[in-house]
Amino acid sequence: MSGNTFGKLFTVTTFGESHGPALGAIVDGCPPGLPLTEADLQQDLDRRRPGTSRHTTQRREPDQVKILSGVFEGVTTGTSIGLLIENTDQRSKDYSNIKDQFRPAHADYSYHHKYGIRDYRGGGRSSARETAMRVAAGGIAKKYLATQGIVVRGYMSQLGPIEIAFKSWEAVHDNPFFCPDPDRVPELEAFMDELRRAQDSVGAKITVVADGLPPGLGEPVFDRLDAELAHGLMSINAVKGVEIGDGFAAVAQRGSEHRDEMTPEGFLSNHAGGVLGGISSGQQLVAHLALKPTSSITTPGRSIDLHGQAVEVITKGRHDPCVGIRATPIAEAMMALTLMDHLLRHRAQNTDVRVTTPVLR
Amino acid sequence: MSGNTFGKLFTVTTFGESHGPALGAIVDGCPPGLPLTEADLQQDLDRRRPGTSRHTTQRREPDQVKILSGVFEGVTTGTSIGLLIENTDQRSKDYSNIKDQFRPAHADYSYHHKYGIRDYRGGGRSSARETAMRVAAGGIAKKYLATQGIVVRGYMSQLGPIEIAFKSWEAVHDNPFFCPDPDRVPELEAFMDELRRAQDSVGAKITVVADGLPPGLGEPVFDRLDAELAHGLMSINAVKGVEIGDGFAAVAQRGSEHRDEMTPEGFLSNHAGGVLGGISSGQQLVAHLALKPTSSITTPGRSIDLHGQAVEVITKGRHDPCVGIRATPIAEAMMALTLMDHLLRHRAQNTDVRVTTPVLR
Amino acid sequence: MSGNTFGKLFTVTTFGESHGPALGAIVDGCPPGLPLTEADLQQDLDRRRPGTSRHTTQRREPDQVKILSGVFEGVTTGTSIGLLIENTDQRSKDYSNIKDQFRPAHADYSYHHKYGIRDYRGGGRSSARETAMRVAAGGIAKKYLATQGIVVRGYMSQLGPIEIAFKSWEAVHDNPFFCPDPDRVPELEAFMDELRRAQDSVGAKITVVADGLPPGLGEPVFDRLDAELAHGLMSINAVKGVEIGDGFAAVAQRGSEHRDEMTPEGFLSNHAGGVLGGISSGQQLVAHLALKPTSSITTPGRSIDLHGQAVEVITKGRHDPCVGIRATPIAEAMMALTLMDHLLRHRAQNTDVRVTTPVLR
Amino acid sequence: MSGNTFGKLFTVTTFGESHGPALGAIVDGCPPGLPLTEADLQQDLDRRRPGTSRHTTQRREPDQVKILSGVFEGVTTGTSIGLLIENTDQRSKDYSNIKDQFRPAHADYSYHHKYGIRDYRGGGRSSARETAMRVAAGGIAKKYLATQGIVVRGYMSQLGPIEIAFKSWEAVHDNPFFCPDPDRVPELEAFMDELRRAQDSVGAKITVVADGLPPGLGEPVFDRLDAELAHGLMSINAVKGVEIGDGFAAVAQRGSEHRDEMTPEGFLSNHAGGVLGGISSGQQLVAHLALKPTSSITTPGRSIDLHGQAVEVITKGRHDPCVGIRATPIAEAMMALTLMDHLLRHRAQNTDVRVTTPVLR
Repeated sequence: MSGNTFGKLFTVTTFGESHGPALGAIVDGCPPGLPLTEADLQQDLDRRRPGTSRHTTQRREPDQVKILSGVFEGVTTGTSIGLLIENTDQRSKDYSNIKDQFRPAHADYSYHHKYGIRDYRGGGRSSARETAMRVAAGGIAKKYLATQGIVVRGYMSQLGPIEIAFKSWEAVHDNPFFCPDPDRVPELEAFMDELRRAQDSVGAKITVVADGLPPGLGEPVFDRLDAELAHGLMSINAVKGVEIGDGFAAVAQRGSEHRDEMTPEGFLSNHAGGVLGGISSGQQLVAHLALKPTSSITTPGRSIDLHGQAVEVITKGRHDPCVGIRATPIAEAMMALTLMDHLLRHRAQNTDVRVTTPVLR
Repeated sequence: MSGNTFGKLFTVTTFGESHGPALGAIVDGCPPGLPLTEADLQQDLDRRRPGTSRHTTQRREPDQVKILSGVFEGVTTGTSIGLLIENTDQRSKDYSNIKDQFRPAHADYSYHHKYGIRDYRGGGRSSARETAMRVAAGGIAKKYLATQGIVVRGYMSQLGPIEIAFKSWEAVHDNPFFCPDPDRVPELEAFMDELRRAQDSVGAKITVVADGLPPGLGEPVFDRLDAELAHGLMSINAVKGVEIGDGFAAVAQRGSEHRDEMTPEGFLSNHAGGVLGGISSGQQLVAHLALKPTSSITTPGRSIDLHGQAVEVITKGRHDPCVGIRATPIAEAMMALTLMDHLLRHRAQNTDVRVTTPVLR
Repeated sequence: MSGNTFGKLFTVTTFGESHGPALGAIVDGCPPGLPLTEADLQQDLDRRRPGTSRHTTQRREPDQVKILSGVFEGVTTGTSIGLLIENTDQRSKDYSNIKDQFRPAHADYSYHHKYGIRDYRGGGRSSARETAMRVAAGGIAKKYLATQGIVVRGYMSQLGPIEIAFKSWEAVHDNPFFCPDPDRVPELEAFMDELRRAQDSVGAKITVVADGLPPGLGEPVFDRLDAELAHGLMSINAVKGVEIGDGFAAVAQRGSEHRDEMTPEGFLSNHAGGVLGGISSGQQLVAHLALKPTSSITTPGRSIDLHGQAVEVITKGRHDPCVGIRATPIAEAMMALTLMDHLLRHRAQNTDVRVTTPVLR
Repeated sequence: MSGNTFGKLFTVTTFGESHGPALGAIVDGCPPGLPLTEADLQQDLDRRRPGTSRHTTQRREPDQVKILSGVFEGVTTGTSIGLLIENTDQRSKDYSNIKDQFRPAHADYSYHHKYGIRDYRGGGRSSARETAMRVAAGGIAKKYLATQGIVVRGYMSQLGPIEIAFKSWEAVHDNPFFCPDPDRVPELEAFMDELRRAQDSVGAKITVVADGLPPGLGEPVFDRLDAELAHGLMSINAVKGVEIGDGFAAVAQRGSEHRDEMTPEGFLSNHAGGVLGGISSGQQLVAHLALKPTSSITTPGRSIDLHGQAVEVITKGRHDPCVGIRATPIAEAMMALTLMDHLLRHRAQNTDVRVTTPVLR
């Protein structure tokens, strides 16, 4: 209950500090009979992995995941799946100078007041490194969802002030930014190079979608699909906002404009982003998330120490100048985990339901 | 697990259809010894109540709440609190024409595919009427939080295209819009009158804040304070987006601008909205939510029926032209419930913690 | 989280004090499409109802249950079901003398230390009256289980020192003791008459079984079917012991005797009581529970008051001389709720499983 | 939700098959500031460890536990604690002959029907080897409880037909049976030697108690302390019955005999076993559990194969002739975990409570 578990039926529980010996997770509730290998999970881990371009942290971690249980002869057995990634490239000495200080905009200060103690090396549990296990666990969800025709994908839709319109999924995989438009990549690279020189950081916006959903996933009141998706996405480090479908643009819309009309051939629009009354409509599920700029910058900042005295803090260590750049696989993982959980929850209660009304897309 | 419970330690479980005999809730986990009367809860119910101005639905419900258990001689006993509101002004005949049709942008279609059956009268369980019990339950949380010096308040920050800057809390209570600036009220009234004539609806943006929080509320990974707040707020009918602090504006910000520096006298800014690493910093907790325009408008819309045939739907009944107008007390309730839950969760694990570092505001 | 919810997918949350205005429950997770009326639930409530023979408390409560939501046109909709029973025959004045004293073997003392306050009228929340809502909720589970061919039934297997061997289910319904052997009823009546004259109370043993279970219900480690059944049964007031199958008799057995061998025609014995490795085997599920003698007897007892001073306590009021007599429907309800929860949990994860191995009985 | 988590606030989630690469657990919710080393946990693991006498399985596992997170500089940080034990002495070839058969009284048959697939090597997830992680996690709970003056201890109270009266805690640690009376040990050894020659197995009864509990732990209705303790104890492999205090003996008792009277000097008896109304009374918490005889015996037994055909099964491998012999540390662990969870739950809701009534013992 200190909150390291996500999901109710398909649950992921994680542990691990940035500079501890290992990160780990237990995935519980996976249906039996799913073919699963470590390579399946490695794929997204490699997409999230640091050190693959000059635009991310230079910490180099292979992030090699091991499956320790729940898989027998290459197939899931229905029992809990243990996952482990050993940390290999910690340089804890980099952090000793901030042992007694609170870095501005970091979790240092709030952790200190909560726990009275913190593993200050690399941010400890508050490090974005924690998200590696989300990606590994999300890979299991993705694999199962794929057997049901459900595909979860994401891309960067804004880097700092630069908005990026979606062009193609192929483009997303061809650059370190998860940029869906190959023509915009040089612009992003130039922006990042300038940013690094300025010793500053910047925010980003990620869009993540799911195609192939059946209508009916989600619960009617508190555990709506969109509400739990918001929970999952907002729980990613640095996320400050979540939108479903048109999101904040809906504030200025009129009902006659926003409502997605239906015809026998399908929906005429998707302002709702695939959710009606908290339950999937069968349309594409669409979410956007806002990531704040990285707090760890080398420009000195004003802060206090453990005794409340004024200090000037310079954050050393190796950091991403834009945490949003590596956030796409993480956002996909959280959407996949949310959908997997709701798929199982839907089955639990509604196995008997037979509906003849056609499914619209 | 069909999702009618909110919270983990301070839990609210609700039932009730728009046109059924009653709405109810069970609040579990309230600390013993809290003075509590029905009048305490009625206050916010009256703020949410329909029919108080020409700008909301003309359904007239007294929404009189009864406390059925958990309070003895005016004080909570620590056992579960039963709440009940009887429905009195249902006019179910208004809805018989949509029995076999799906209203565009309503939960009709998704409920049908999920359950194969739905109480179509007034939207059944998907009606915003369900939120009355959230407000009643939230009143208990507010009462307890007040004993800890924590105050939760909200206001309308945008109506359709009209953005409203915060002026004062006094102003909020003096108009049917929860508008924090008395000078803008005539503009809002004119806008709504025009909207009604156009038989259309519009979205709104609500801002809700908490003052007086101790640092340390929230959990580090999945159950972050901001993530669970996003869950709670996104679970309100019609909400399509949630922001914490600067929200989506953080995308274009630089780290040197976004980070909230600290001095012995306090924080120098509050871009983070009171949460660092998922845990309260002690600053004002700030959230914004986007509500879509009401789906129920009298302008005909294209849809299908149970058999997949094309139909034209006109939604009769009595509806709010802007659901955002009555959403402020609901948003306050969800923030209060989230904070109450996290206050208890924090106590469970961290009772022993003693910190001498001063608390900044 | 103050523990008034049972189940994970098919959840029952209850409220209500013995002498408050009403008892209530919310049942969440019921599959849609189940025909359900108040009469379905009244049946077991009438079996549990006090005042039906001279061997139980003389408090007379009609215990008339109302369904307030979740059922539309006689059929469940899949949304949460609100249940309410109004209290009508409270005589709170009977209890004022024990306001500042702790009755021996009652919850008075432990509640006082936990909450610092208690509704002392009729035992408040600790009254066995609370179990009425379990029976009502259990009725929903029983109705659904019946559609799957699963039948839950119980009987009294021991009253004080009198052991009762099972004869027939018909006999169980023909006497106020739920005695499965009509020839033993006069003996039970004589025993109870003597007990009443002695102003004393006595314990009882109840046996509850389920027939028609599919193999596969239950979870492998902590949430075993037998473990959660033990949880449910031990949560009934006055229960001090739970056995599955041979229970404590298994201590002295040898493996060659205890193990239930299998042949193509079926199991050769049922020492296990229908559970292997925490998962149903498809055999009859068998549980026994021990209920202690009622604490409320009119014979004076030594105790202390709020200030720790010695007092002599005489418990007035109207009490059951053997709480076990009315416990059979409650035990059935808890078994039905446990099975219903596990049926849904099994479906959630294992919908895809297809096994060709024959099912043994 | 496939049930590999125990607890609500102090949670333990486990993974691992008998013959997989490793066993693991995540303990979430531990208060920060607790000194904790691997040696603290190793102590009980060594007590549970196989191969320490001729009366248990000859599999030799060092069961060396590693702490992978949540502890910094020897002290818990409040974040999730990852635990790992690598398996070293698997001999999977022993089990290939039972790949397509169901061993009588094993989980083989029920797992097969649930999942359609099972890791048959050494019982996979259903192996008692799984309990090693419970013991490791329980060690953390024990360490914290000790800081609150709460001590959990257990002993063997019956081996097959041999009942053993409690003599002293010192004696318990001096023999491989956890026998509390040194004079009875030769009798137990002779019994076990005879049993091994007969190629059979036998059941046992374990008693586990907690001293030093404050009154007030537990929740009033479903989540009673005794109910959750029953859940925890019944979830241990091979357990078929659980008693609190006098347990099944209470059936034949009278109220005047069973009720524990109170005087200013303390309780006059402890028939209740330390729980009143589901909440701790402050007396010694007493539970007994019945373990069935090991199913794995080398005497051939009748069974069926995957196709429903009759087979004769001989279980090879290395097994405990009495699983009860090593069960004492496991029972202690489950009681410690239950108490730890309830201690935190109590704090969450009742931090404000101040009671002046003296605590009796």
